[in-house]
Amino acid sequence: MSILDGGWDCVGRPVCVLGLGLIGGSIMRATAEAGREVFGYNRSVKGAQSARSDGFDATTKLADALVRAADTHALIVLAVPMPALPAMLAHIRELAPNCPLTDVTSVKTAVLDAVVSVGLQARFVGGHPMTGTAQSGWGAGHGGLFNRTSWVLSVDDHVDPAVWSMVMTLALDCGALVLPAKSDEHDAAAAAISHMPHLLAEALAVAAAEVPLAFAVAAGSFRDATRVAGTAPDLVRAMCEGNSGQLLSSVDRVIELLCRARDSLACNNSVAELVEAGHAARARYDSFPRSDIVTVIIGAENWREDLAAAGRAGGVIRSALPSLGSP
Amino acid sequence: MSILDGGWDCVGRPVCVLGLGLIGGSIMRATAEAGREVFGYNRSVKGAQSARSDGFDATTKLADALVRAADTHALIVLAVPMPALPAMLAHIRELAPNCPLTDVTSVKTAVLDAVVSVGLQARFVGGHPMTGTAQSGWGAGHGGLFNRTSWVLSVDDHVDPAVWSMVMTLALDCGALVLPAKSDEHDAAAAAISHMPHLLAEALAVAAAEVPLAFAVAAGSFRDATRVAGTAPDLVRAMCEGNSGQLLSSVDRVIELLCRARDSLACNNSVAELVEAGHAARARYDSFPRSDIVTVIIGAENWREDLAAAGRAGGVIRSALPSLGSP
Repeated sequence: MSILDGGWDCVGRPVCVLGLGLIGGSIMRATAEAGREVFGYNRSVKGAQSARSDGFDATTKLADALVRAADTHALIVLAVPMPALPAMLAHIRELAPNCPLTDVTSVKTAVLDAVVSVGLQARFVGGHPMTGTAQSGWGAGHGGLFNRTSWVLSVDDHVDPAVWSMVMTLALDCGALVLPAKSDEHDAAAAAISHMPHLLAEALAVAAAEVPLAFAVAAGSFRDATRVAGTAPDLVRAMCEGNSGQLLSSVDRVIELLCRARDSLACNNSVAELVEAGHAARARYDSFPRSDIVTVIIGAENWREDLAAAGRAGGVIRSALPSLGSP
Repeated sequence: MSILDGGWDCVGRPVCVLGLGLIGGSIMRATAEAGREVFGYNRSVKGAQSARSDGFDATTKLADALVRAADTHALIVLAVPMPALPAMLAHIRELAPNCPLTDVTSVKTAVLDAVVSVGLQARFVGGHPMTGTAQSGWGAGHGGLFNRTSWVLSVDDHVDPAVWSMVMTLALDCGALVLPAKSDEHDAAAAAISHMPHLLAEALAVAAAEVPLAFAVAAGSFRDATRVAGTAPDLVRAMCEGNSGQLLSSVDRVIELLCRARDSLACNNSVAELVEAGHAARARYDSFPRSDIVTVIIGAENWREDLAAAGRAGGVIRSALPSLGSP
């Protein structure tokens, strides 16, 4: 059934975290708190030393970590920034090509493409924990970071049920709710609800800065509306430029809506259409149903499509789903 | 020096509040707490009764309130919604044409136009307290609503120094910081920092609602970015459509910025220009200097221009400025 060495056993497998920043460092703590064996690699000596002095098993030697992962059939978690991924994947293909593999990056299609280009997709299930803080680095992390937050797991056509089950268990061990989604649908949603708000906040800040009295008059609502424009430009660019296809669709749609509202305001002194549609959409969001996914069996016929449909409808996995063929 | 009956005396004049909703009701309470004589009118029996049962002097008879205002040289505060203003101004012209007059509406040019059309501009100074809550009506108000918040007062070319001084004192008695501004500059700023964020939140909500997985994935940042789309459509339309000229400029500029970012993303896979400009603009806002206006004498040469320039530079009035010719 599964392509993996070492069989279906999830709990017995160690976790190997590559990159011990905010997310990777928090995964290391959370999996350790869940009683699992976890070890990790960090490029900077400072990060690895911080982890070690907190009692964790961390090295700056990537080859050592990957050989150990291969020897122990560990689940490898890619927790490095997007630009560092291709080189990291090349090392994994060389030293630990049979290990199951996941990532925690905020775009999923671009990561999958990188994984495919090194031929590791059969053991890969993409992930995106929907959490974070304004800080970064080992010191900013904590074991409760994922508690009751959504962790998107890809259910693309290629994913292996045993690897999927294993990554689901990792996310649940970290306290997260698992939200199954196709990679392209995740990226379209991320463009609409995260990357687009960043661009709008930037545009709003630029336009207001050109109006002489604007900053003098600005109060709480402007501060809130432009808050994410305070995010470091490199991070915003990495998100937006790593998801350009989906983001272009979002930008085009928002420009279209604004142009229509503009024409209606100019010709009929009315913004009724946009304002009423926006209010109705926001009300639908407020009443969006959340539910638990409990009936899908991982590996059963159409399990990927069933999970994607359940995720789309607001479902999340709160406790491990059974797997076809698991003991 | 002044065109007013009853001279410069500010403290001695009663305050007549027309409309006892959130803002008008809060002004009634705050001025009473400051020890001033205050009476008011409310259209609905319920609102007037609520005010009376809280110990305030409120009537549902507009003519009675206006005749009393005329007899006592009261400062009249227009605290009715924009659509009710023209009829209210016609009554004031008939029954209390010599009273000093201010308003608390969120657009200033449209109100000034309405005041000019009934010939009352010589006694009028427009105002806009930059405060509020999600609730409305007498019951939602309280005497501390204006405490340490900005209250914009118009310093247009026509304004009379005695009336300006009187309205400044009213705002200070309510605990506010007075921010002097030209009406058109206020409206341009309000478009940029308030009305435009409303339209962007509406467009963001509409666009996200069209993406299947968006609401399932949406978390805190989307909720914050679309929060103002939850405002009642009538209120958003009144703000936006009452300030259409300035809002059109804002919308055009934001569309231009988004189109440039879109083209740059499509052609060069880069949003660097917008993201870096937005981050820099937001940083300028965070470090925008606030200061106290203390040196301007109301009624002195160029006093209106000096106040407008000081407001533009981030200055506010925390305690009453002296007036040329006052006792």
